[in-house]
Amino acid sequence: MQGKFITLEGSEGVGKTTNVEFIKERLAQSGIECVVTREPGGTSLGEKIRSLLLARDSESMDDYAELLLIFAARAQHLARVIKPALGRGQWVLCDRFTDATYAYQGGGRGVPDASIAVLENLLQGDLRPDLTIILDIDPEIGLARVKERGEFDRFEREQLEFFQRVRSAYLARAAADTRRYRVVNVARTLTEIQSDLRRELDQFIRRAQ
Amino acid sequence: MQGKFITLEGSEGVGKTTNVEFIKERLAQSGIECVVTREPGGTSLGEKIRSLLLARDSESMDDYAELLLIFAARAQHLARVIKPALGRGQWVLCDRFTDATYAYQGGGRGVPDASIAVLENLLQGDLRPDLTIILDIDPEIGLARVKERGEFDRFEREQLEFFQRVRSAYLARAAADTRRYRVVNVARTLTEIQSDLRRELDQFIRRAQ
Repeated sequence: MQGKFITLEGSEGVGKTTNVEFIKERLAQSGIECVVTREPGGTSLGEKIRSLLLARDSESMDDYAELLLIFAARAQHLARVIKPALGRGQWVLCDRFTDATYAYQGGGRGVPDASIAVLENLLQGDLRPDLTIILDIDPEIGLARVKERGEFDRFEREQLEFFQRVRSAYLARAAADTRRYRVVNVARTLTEIQSDLRRELDQFIRRAQ
Repeated sequence: MQGKFITLEGSEGVGKTTNVEFIKERLAQSGIECVVTREPGGTSLGEKIRSLLLARDSESMDDYAELLLIFAARAQHLARVIKPALGRGQWVLCDRFTDATYAYQGGGRGVPDASIAVLENLLQGDLRPDLTIILDIDPEIGLARVKERGEFDRFEREQLEFFQRVRSAYLARAAADTRRYRVVNVARTLTEIQSDLRRELDQFIRRAQ
């Protein structure tokens, strides 16, 4: 049986790292082993592309160059990691996927959704995540958390309005498909957040089995 | 007035470097200054992508990852170099462009032409080269020339059959559009080759003025 594909999404400072770990543990407690991976990256080539994307360079990057680099990393990731794992029946938990492209390059940069959809269809065919959890927070709070970490990459240096557009794009996608998306408010205590995550996951696991 | 866009194409060992120089000189003699550039590359980001593409890595590269990396470099190249130059009225002479993608990734790797066309249309709109010169040679002779140079990159290590498919793809494109393409047989002396190039260029310049 094909494994399930879960993606975790959200803007800067939503606590993805902590919660990826929590979801992985929760799946393990239900006897489900999952491959944990991330985008952009997840392969040797993908991590090199990630470095190009995050680097603060003197030459400004064209929006379509950025978009295509992200999908190049995604193609490698799909072919070498995601599809083989799902095919073996393993679950895959991915820290950001194509929803992030709609949010950052679409909402943030203003690349038309139709251009992103062309690439999504070309590469993924009808492969879409089975469950997408969006960790949601007001960008002002999220960015304040990131600032405490110090150095900013090329994306983190964007202005507040950029992240507001990213958030809106995520929320619009979630609103358009309530079957696949779950939005979790992360402007709360970790206990509250993880109680929500646990409930959503347990429900998803029951449906999947 | 918009500048003219000339591309030079061909497989390994056809002598592109020498002939790019010759074409540039010939244009200069007609009072036409041109921007000389190359793909993949032509920008700071593009050259970094070129390194990823040519590197012999332990992880094999997915065909679509390769295709998207090439178009990512091309997006940057179009936005930062080619379109601005053409817009200023300068001519652009580019060592390989999208025809190389149809030849190498399409003919060589077997990526469907339709997938390449989707990306070409997405990025280029209706921008196509005004003149494409294909330097043509039997790949057995071309590869023998490359071998004299020593070290091989990831493409040069492909087998003879790969380059035969690349050549066929180039020739099929040329046959389908005799207005834009000129095929120059480079299995001859440099004097003969450049006499052909000169005739084709002079004709093109006359038409352009």
